[in-house]
Amino acid sequence: MKKQIHGGDVYRYKDALDFSSNMNPLGTPESVIRAAGESMEKICNYPDIQQEELIRGLSAYEQVPAEWIICGNGAAEVIFTLVHAVKPKNALLLAPTFAEYEQALEAENCSLQFHMLKEEQGFLPDESLLDQITEELDMLFLCSPNNPTGVLIPPVLMDRILEKCTETGTLLVIDECFQDFIPKPESYTRKGDLENHPNLFLLKAFTKRYAMAGIRLGYGLTSDRELMERMHRSVQPWNVSIPAQAAGVAALKETEYLEEGRQIVFREQVFLKEGLKTLGFRVYDSSANYILFRGPKGLVEKAWKSGILIRDCSNYRGLEEGYYRVAVRTHELNEKLLEALAD
Amino acid sequence: MKKQIHGGDVYRYKDALDFSSNMNPLGTPESVIRAAGESMEKICNYPDIQQEELIRGLSAYEQVPAEWIICGNGAAEVIFTLVHAVKPKNALLLAPTFAEYEQALEAENCSLQFHMLKEEQGFLPDESLLDQITEELDMLFLCSPNNPTGVLIPPVLMDRILEKCTETGTLLVIDECFQDFIPKPESYTRKGDLENHPNLFLLKAFTKRYAMAGIRLGYGLTSDRELMERMHRSVQPWNVSIPAQAAGVAALKETEYLEEGRQIVFREQVFLKEGLKTLGFRVYDSSANYILFRGPKGLVEKAWKSGILIRDCSNYRGLEEGYYRVAVRTHELNEKLLEALAD
Repeated sequence: MKKQIHGGDVYRYKDALDFSSNMNPLGTPESVIRAAGESMEKICNYPDIQQEELIRGLSAYEQVPAEWIICGNGAAEVIFTLVHAVKPKNALLLAPTFAEYEQALEAENCSLQFHMLKEEQGFLPDESLLDQITEELDMLFLCSPNNPTGVLIPPVLMDRILEKCTETGTLLVIDECFQDFIPKPESYTRKGDLENHPNLFLLKAFTKRYAMAGIRLGYGLTSDRELMERMHRSVQPWNVSIPAQAAGVAALKETEYLEEGRQIVFREQVFLKEGLKTLGFRVYDSSANYILFRGPKGLVEKAWKSGILIRDCSNYRGLEEGYYRVAVRTHELNEKLLEALAD
Repeated sequence: MKKQIHGGDVYRYKDALDFSSNMNPLGTPESVIRAAGESMEKICNYPDIQQEELIRGLSAYEQVPAEWIICGNGAAEVIFTLVHAVKPKNALLLAPTFAEYEQALEAENCSLQFHMLKEEQGFLPDESLLDQITEELDMLFLCSPNNPTGVLIPPVLMDRILEKCTETGTLLVIDECFQDFIPKPESYTRKGDLENHPNLFLLKAFTKRYAMAGIRLGYGLTSDRELMERMHRSVQPWNVSIPAQAAGVAALKETEYLEEGRQIVFREQVFLKEGLKTLGFRVYDSSANYILFRGPKGLVEKAWKSGILIRDCSNYRGLEEGYYRVAVRTHELNEKLLEALAD
């Protein structure tokens, strides 16, 4: 098995205190564990291919028509399904960013361009990105907040990107999976643009919002009915399992939990950034529930001596050895992380 | 959602007694429900992308090297991943057969040929199939026992098909998902040909063997390392969820359950075939845990009046109104089915 290295490998790093994947610091809600567990009694049946209850819940949660929603076996499956359905010839990606866009595009033999994010510009895309959006460009993937930098694309720049993509007929895919943990998601989400921009596709996930990575549930939003049809033809009909559908329905009712998790992230992000700076690391300005920083080589091994797993970011295109990402967790755990990283 | 009609829609047909999907008549083993339920406590983690324990278990169960195994979110995902990875230009399918081969191939814009199975030949492929295997043919899908007919391809014919595919460089995909419920699977499985035929791919599933359709777990076997690599690049790394991996590991230990389920199928298949014939239906000679028969129009509605769901096979390519498929279940349930279908 030659799969790329990712965060969250608690299988080779047994009993790790995991800061390498970025979940809601409160952990999975009890209601979700219970609902998914109870659904096991029904697994002799196939999952509902219409995902009726889940889609109804999501339509209410996102305030978009049910027809605009497609669910997947994690947001990662939605990415692959989208790329398989579109079969783009040319695509543009940020670097560094989440590796799965590139993997999905390469599986389609798509030709790739990169917009290299510069450390000295705080890993923000600049206006030269607009020049890279041409009539030949079929797809542009943006991740906001970006993974692993945590940097949000300013709304004014995003307006211009969307406008340019609309002119050139480029499908703009915005991964909003980590917007659940920023202070004002309503100022950043592009949901309001979906209706008038069929060339816009938004990615969302239950994974981080409800700390349920292991059950696999993500979704995409678009008003493009023809694209939606093509996507449904590019994926098996039973892609979202019974426990995933049950977990999703239960999770959407967890409003207090979500707000509590957000408040922890806001407080602890400040604490953790300060702590990492005090340790002498170069800390980048993340808006998400994880922090990218730069430090000496060998920090992963050092943290692991204390049973802590952090994300080595050297395998991200555009980064190199010495870049690390850590999740923002509860105060007690964040203190343990800082202790482990101290000399 | 414009998904094709399939069996097992217990969501629109609430509280149905389901004969439209074909599971082990014993239902899901308790150990599987328990293992998957307990794994819920860990869903804040990502699934193991190396699927270490599951692959180790499968390697022992199938007696093939771990490197030959690829797991999927159900066998249906394995089909889509395989087709996305191979990107065939020309493919050949039986008709009627399981609809997902065609759906996956169409999503790749593959040109399709069909080998039409004839009722008067007992839905057996004939030698003209060999002439359809040419150097231009990239992939051939066979399902043995075939769905929905239950017909096994005789080993002598399969030998010649494999030989011809090897000559022409055609990838032969044999779906063996229903071989768990035939009397002598060791006489039919082509596992022994894998080592010397990298152009052979076998499909297998936990779905029917352990009645766990809702949790999604299937796998494929091939000795072609290069194809395996391409498949891993065509699918997300987290495709098999934590509960699916846990369920799979537990299921593989259920040897008595499996033999008991098989014995029920062997006995009840005879009973149900006789019963259906007595009711005046034309019954085809299935070797699997389901039976295809022909009867008057409107039987689905008639059965549903007794709360029973049977599979209308009119949407299978090559069949028409009046064809139905029913699962072989326990004696008590099979009697209920026969009562409901009686006049």
